[in-house]
Amino acid sequence: MRIALDASGTDDAPHVEIEGALSALAELEDVSITLVGDEGVLTAALADRGVAVSDRLGVVHAPDRILASDSPATVVRRKPESSIVRGLGLHRDGEADAFISAGSTGAVMAASLFLLRPLPGVDRPSVATTLPTVGAPMILVDSGTNVDCKPRQLVQFAHLGSVYARDALGVEGRPRVGLLNIGEEPEKGDELAVETYELLAADSQLQFVGNVEGRDVIRGVCDVLVTDGFAGNVLLKFYESVAQHVVGIVKSNLDLRGIELDYEKTFSMLDYSEYGGAPLLGVNGLSVICHGGSTPKALKNAIRVAADAVRNDLVGDMAAEFADRTAAGPPAGSSATAT
Amino acid sequence: MRIALDASGTDDAPHVEIEGALSALAELEDVSITLVGDEGVLTAALADRGVAVSDRLGVVHAPDRILASDSPATVVRRKPESSIVRGLGLHRDGEADAFISAGSTGAVMAASLFLLRPLPGVDRPSVATTLPTVGAPMILVDSGTNVDCKPRQLVQFAHLGSVYARDALGVEGRPRVGLLNIGEEPEKGDELAVETYELLAADSQLQFVGNVEGRDVIRGVCDVLVTDGFAGNVLLKFYESVAQHVVGIVKSNLDLRGIELDYEKTFSMLDYSEYGGAPLLGVNGLSVICHGGSTPKALKNAIRVAADAVRNDLVGDMAAEFADRTAAGPPAGSSATAT
Repeated sequence: MRIALDASGTDDAPHVEIEGALSALAELEDVSITLVGDEGVLTAALADRGVAVSDRLGVVHAPDRILASDSPATVVRRKPESSIVRGLGLHRDGEADAFISAGSTGAVMAASLFLLRPLPGVDRPSVATTLPTVGAPMILVDSGTNVDCKPRQLVQFAHLGSVYARDALGVEGRPRVGLLNIGEEPEKGDELAVETYELLAADSQLQFVGNVEGRDVIRGVCDVLVTDGFAGNVLLKFYESVAQHVVGIVKSNLDLRGIELDYEKTFSMLDYSEYGGAPLLGVNGLSVICHGGSTPKALKNAIRVAADAVRNDLVGDMAAEFADRTAAGPPAGSSATAT
Repeated sequence: MRIALDASGTDDAPHVEIEGALSALAELEDVSITLVGDEGVLTAALADRGVAVSDRLGVVHAPDRILASDSPATVVRRKPESSIVRGLGLHRDGEADAFISAGSTGAVMAASLFLLRPLPGVDRPSVATTLPTVGAPMILVDSGTNVDCKPRQLVQFAHLGSVYARDALGVEGRPRVGLLNIGEEPEKGDELAVETYELLAADSQLQFVGNVEGRDVIRGVCDVLVTDGFAGNVLLKFYESVAQHVVGIVKSNLDLRGIELDYEKTFSMLDYSEYGGAPLLGVNGLSVICHGGSTPKALKNAIRVAADAVRNDLVGDMAAEFADRTAAGPPAGSSATAT
């Protein structure tokens, strides 16, 4: 398979991208990579490393830069020669099986929606983020892509997350779906949560395990945690920072006493770069979004995430999930989704 | 001053309450405490400890038990002899300067609203929780009391939190108010956040420092963090659990290697019981709400919180803050609050 990699995405592009690509090529034998960016810059950077362009490592020229001032919505029209638009074009045209970028999330989202299109039955594609827990990792959907969601959109997230949990995390059978909420009982929460609870409980395609409170998130009580992107994003960003902070307290304390600890190993559970990237779920294609501050290791893992998704036909599985929903007719209680 | 303490609130009542009260009496010379609960049970429990009822430690009989099945809204009418209703009645009637309970939060809230009444200008009283950060502690308001809030209600939370930060945390001048959001720019977030941002920025009584993302919470970038109770509660409960979890990882790792660490001291920053209880802000009285799982130390600290609030005239200061708002007329942009 061939993966198109935006080589202008990270804060330290293209070096991080090239290092990540080289690691992935060494590890994943069936993967080829196309670096998408300024050809001159990329060729020089590869030459510096003594690496030649080959069948497995190509370069596609994309000279335009997307700036912070560019509106994501206009990127496709105004920056057709940017790495994001060129790379997604390669994927759409069948010249790549997936696209990966650590560039502007807004721009990648908007360009992916425009060029790949949402799958039938999906109102709002969503980025699913994998969160470490005490048990197995958990899919958080939505983690910041969509705010002001409707109940039926959260139900769609539950389906997208379920397919992803099966394909990416290897969950057997029906993944356990939880609803992020502020109490255990069905009537707890805001209007969105109360209405979503009803719809999830009535959806026979899902294994709904009920409300999940903030304190239960870390316990790994579900495989897919469904929420609006506002609370999801607060949770995600807070998680990362508080874990780092507590590890920092430990480190400064032990350093003072001369005690060494293998922090990377001890806290590997908290290491986000293990998961590398998050695919945009619900579009007719595979667009994997990474942090702007990604390390080479994170990018290598994002390439692995993309390769796994291609092998498992994640996009086909999502399309089938929503085709089944349509075929089954509206679930009981779906009239409430019109609110 | 005299503080009425619900002696039937915690999971291990009345022992935790009595221990907390005795510690507080030893520490706070100007405080007297009235234990509110079953007189027979309390008298026996005090006798077991060799403690006599005195001027500083009284007992008021309240035989009714509030059950999980009782609707909070009906508690005042149906359970007038419960410790919550009796204790709040003592405060309302001037026989106590404050009321503290670790009982059902919903029941304490509802009874406080009914018996003490909201202050003029306050739509929804709110529980303010003190969160530890890398810097100074921070007031999170709302932390789960109110969901589906309107922008103008979040602005009221900002005022309530500002008064509390001055009176309880000793912040000088105008406390820094941040808005919990999923991006830094004013246009980021959901509708509620975008509209609230405008109102906060236009409110000359407040020192608004802008949006605060999940990753910034722990950094202590503001004194008052304003949000709807849904995101606030998710954040609060998650904080507690993830900190415990990371500390647990450290402990099991160091235990295996025979390394001892004073966890209580090392992680004192993360110790919620330091803050003990949270007053219900925006009512015409002082009702302090504690965790059902409170320790004697937490209850002692809640008594300290209540005593500080009485000394600083928190209720008078809140009333003055809202009187100033009314006198100043509606702030610019307040028409948007009608949404």
